[in-house]
This record gives sequence, C-alpha cells and structure tokens, in this order.
Amino acid sequence: MAEKDWIARYFAPLAKGQGAAGLRDDVAQLGTTGPVAITVDAMVEGVHFLASDPIDTVARKLVRANVSDLLASGAEPAEALLTLGWPKARGEAEIAAFSAALGDELSAWGAQLIGGDTVTSPLGLFLSLTLTGRCLADGPVRRTGAKPGDAVWLTGCIGGAARGWEAVSGGDKGVAGGWRDAYRLPDLPPLAAAAFIARHASAAMDVSDGLLIDARSLAAASGVSLEIDLGAVPFAGGADGEAEMLKLATWGDDYQVLFTAPEAASATIAQQASDEGIQLARIGKISDMSGLSLILRGRNVNLPETLGFEHG
Amino acid sequence: MAEKDWIARYFAPLAKGQGAAGLRDDVAQLGTTGPVAITVDAMVEGVHFLASDPIDTVARKLVRANVSDLLASGAEPAEALLTLGWPKARGEAEIAAFSAALGDELSAWGAQLIGGDTVTSPLGLFLSLTLTGRCLADGPVRRTGAKPGDAVWLTGCIGGAARGWEAVSGGDKGVAGGWRDAYRLPDLPPLAAAAFIARHASAAMDVSDGLLIDARSLAAASGVSLEIDLGAVPFAGGADGEAEMLKLATWGDDYQVLFTAPEAASATIAQQASDEGIQLARIGKISDMSGLSLILRGRNVNLPETLGFEHG
Repeated sequence: MAEKDWIARYFAPLAKGQGAAGLRDDVAQLGTTGPVAITVDAMVEGVHFLASDPIDTVARKLVRANVSDLLASGAEPAEALLTLGWPKARGEAEIAAFSAALGDELSAWGAQLIGGDTVTSPLGLFLSLTLTGRCLADGPVRRTGAKPGDAVWLTGCIGGAARGWEAVSGGDKGVAGGWRDAYRLPDLPPLAAAAFIARHASAAMDVSDGLLIDARSLAAASGVSLEIDLGAVPFAGGADGEAEMLKLATWGDDYQVLFTAPEAASATIAQQASDEGIQLARIGKISDMSGLSLILRGRNVNLPETLGFEHG
Repeated sequence: MAEKDWIARYFAPLAKGQGAAGLRDDVAQLGTTGPVAITVDAMVEGVHFLASDPIDTVARKLVRANVSDLLASGAEPAEALLTLGWPKARGEAEIAAFSAALGDELSAWGAQLIGGDTVTSPLGLFLSLTLTGRCLADGPVRRTGAKPGDAVWLTGCIGGAARGWEAVSGGDKGVAGGWRDAYRLPDLPPLAAAAFIARHASAAMDVSDGLLIDARSLAAASGVSLEIDLGAVPFAGGADGEAEMLKLATWGDDYQVLFTAPEAASATIAQQASDEGIQLARIGKISDMSGLSLILRGRNVNLPETLGFEHG
C-alpha cells in the first residue's frame, strides 16, 4: 500500500484536530495556547525494543517515554508528530495494530496526532515522536531549581522494569505477575502528576535512566547536594538488603518523577498526593554541598560504581 | 564518547535560545508567539541519501526538506528538534561536521535548535527533524484554497535534481556545472518566499515529489482543475521537447513552491517578486473542472503514466 493510503486509513483517524488538517498537508498548526513544552524521543529496533516485541507495546512505550518527560516538567500532553521508519516486511496488520495502540495511548493522556512523516526503512523499524505539552506553570519545571533545605520526592516505585526483566529472563523469584510486562511497557504516574509538579516542584525530572544517575543529574544541574534514604524508596516487590536496593536503584526504564520542594510544604504535598491518587514518597533531602549521597537506617552507603544507564 | 558529552560539545552551542535550556533538559519551551506551523521530515541512509554522501550535505538537506514545507505554508522557520540515530562506526569527526552544517543551515533560515534525542543506531544513520515556523498569515497556507480563475505560480525552476543526477551518473549532456550537486542538496526559494506566500497565495505546497504529481495533489485538495502550460515552466538548463519537459516535470527533489493566487493580482505578484528577488513564473491556471491537464504551444499534452515519485 502507498504511504498516503496508509496515512489516510490508519493515521488520519487519529488526527481530529483542526490544526492537523486531516494529515493531508505537510505542515500542522499547533493548537496549544500559553507556554508550550516540547520534547522528542526516539526508539530503535534492537536497542529500545526487540524486533519480536508486540507492536502495540512499542507504540505505547514510545508515547509514554515522551509523556514521562512532560509530566516531569509540569505539562499536560497535547499534540504529537510521528516519524515512522517502517520496514516493508512488516505488513498491514502490524501498521493497523500500531496505529490503534498509538491513538489509544495518546488519547489516554489527552493528546492527539497532528502530523508526521512515514518513510520506508530498509534498516529495521525506528520511531520518533515529538510531543507538545501545555505548561501548567509559567514554563517547564526544570532540573535546575532545587534549593538547600528542599525535600526530595518520588512518584510511584522503582524497579518495576527490573522485576519484569527478572520474570521474563527466568530469574523470577516469586515476583508478583504484575511486574512481568513492566520492562516492556513502563507504568507512569497519573496525568494529575503534571499539575502537581507545576504546583509544588522547585526542580523535577523523570528517572528513566535509573534513580541514582538521574538524582545525581538533578543535583548537578541545581548545584546542590542530594541525599537519598534508600530505606524510604518504594521498591517494586520490596527489597530486603542494600545490594538488592542498589540494583533496583541503578536500573533504568522506570519513568517515574523525581522532584524537590520546600520542606515547609511537605505536609501539604503528602496530603494532596493522597487526595489526588498520586503515589508519592519523601526519599531524601537537598543540602548545600554537591553530589549524590546515600543513607540506609541512618548510616552512609557507598555509591555503586555504576549509577544507571549511561547512553553510549 | 557518551551521548551527553556529544550533545554538550556539538549540539548545545547551536541551542542558544532560552527555551532550549542548553539542551540539558528533556523538554524545551517553544519561544514562538502567534500561530505556529510545525512539520517533520525524516531521512534514512540508503533511501534518501547514500552512506557515502558527505555528512554536511545530509544535514543541510534534512533542514531544507523541512524549511521547504514551511516556506510553502507562508511560515518562517523558528525552532528545531533533532532526532539522530547514529551508528557507532561513524566517528567524532563526522558528528562534528554534521552539527556544524546543521547549525549553519538552521541559522541561514533564521532558525535554531531547541531540543532532540540522540540514540545509537545499529541500523545505519537515520534522522528526523521537527521544525516550527511563525505563520505570517492567520495560519499555515493550505493546499485547499485554490479557486477557479486563479493563476498558478512556481518559484525557481524544475529539474535541477534531475540535471545533477544526469551529471553525476555520467549522462551529462553539457549541463552547466551548477546543477551537479542539486540532486544531493536542493536549492530553495529565498526566505522572503514565506511572506510572499502568506501575502498572496490562495493555496500552496512544495513540489518535492515532482511538479505534475504535486500539482495534481493541490488540484485534488482544492477540488478544482489545474492546467499547466509546459512552455511556461522554467526548466533547469532548458528543455527543448515535450519528452524532456515531461521527464523533468515528473522528477522529484526540487523543493520549489507551487501556489495559486487570484488572476487580478498577477501584475502585482510579478512586480513584487521581481522587487524581492524571488524567481517566479506563471505556469498555468485553475478552472472548475477536476484533475490535472497539460498544454504546450496551445495544444493538449497527454499526461505521462507516472506523474512523480510515489511514496512506496
């Protein structure tokens, strides 16, 4: 089938907004007013997913990787442009499943497709999604605003992707089945996290590369020191020793939000999170030194050699 | 070198705008006010360029493919996000040359980098660029607005890419050297074309897939008939017979703007184009039938079987 027929059949139905012009034009018009955040994430067959992974989870993970960045910046997902490098060997049933999952996942976050480019790829499947967001603060919440005395907060839990990988690769040690697919398709905080971050956070980022490496990045960007109490971190399936905690805290693909906020707001933050159904834990504090440090049951813990996923 | 070091060394210097936050964050903030056009174009090694093509022309072609879409919509290029799937085998000298050319080409069009995602690609080089533009009309000029009685206009000339391909592939029949590289790196109309289109065009698109196929698309989108006088089309290096004209008019990669405007404005349009250094030719007219038709020296010309590049 020709590219334009694919677009008309499978992607145009996802593009209902006026600015998308039914995907019949080379450009779209952004419909978002006020400060607009924008992010892009790419995924490559054999790197970010396996060629044999179900195509619907590939589509959903692509959307979630972008949504995660926006939620952490205090912005609600709005409009998406898709680049699709599609191998001819993947037939029409796959493009149908891909577009259905993409549209469904975008809708779940209140976003819609407004444009894109579909090309033939002799190289295997690659994808890139550009996603805009309505900033709920004056602009995107950055990594740079953490202040000494701030508390450090984390949404959700850490290690779901690692637990899923263990389960699938056979090392399943009685892990609850709920984590089985988390390495393929991360759980995100709810959409309400965007407004929560915009309202409360002095600095924020998502923790896609691993809790420790991302916490160090936030501390460095803000020019402060960040201390994590490992005992306060909610680990997927629990973690009963330092080694297990460090393994999960240095694994990537969790897509939760790490943020800082003034200590004086902590009671309000905990209460509002509970009211709004946002799972939230206070996992540490900011001081005026530099770097990352860890404690467990009141004692210092040495940093492991590798803090997370380093992009090669 | 790690991804973040590459970004800091080669791409962050291109991202001077406040919204880019020095490319140290996962999201950027759009800085454009008023109606914003947005477009995305991808290029794949072995499809849109050869692995052996100079990397600076690959960067420039990527930018120009997007700029062409914006100019044709009456928008001035503003902010770019780059997705780069980079094979490890391409070393640091290539990334340096790529980023320098990308930055230079964006600057030449008044645009700058504000974000992106760089991933390792075991699949060969692929690229995707998202580019926003400031609409100089109320929104993007669309393909849908052509009216019976409108004149059809074309910027620049058609066939440069074909002439360049002839020269390189050995079929050079005394073609001026100026076209030699045009198949690799298209000439675009000047930036002033954006305001010109916004001011005058009832419908517009770029002709990247071939003049005839794109003219048929515009006619179909507008629900009108479009007649092209082949004798009025400026062909690169000239064309002295119907067969030669049809070859050039069905070749792609020219990246000029095809637009329509009320006949009553024709004298003004011709004069202003001349004043503003925009090469422009009146190549046909719109009537209330449907489809595409061709004439040459007052006689009908049958449409060739293939009107241009059909995206597989």
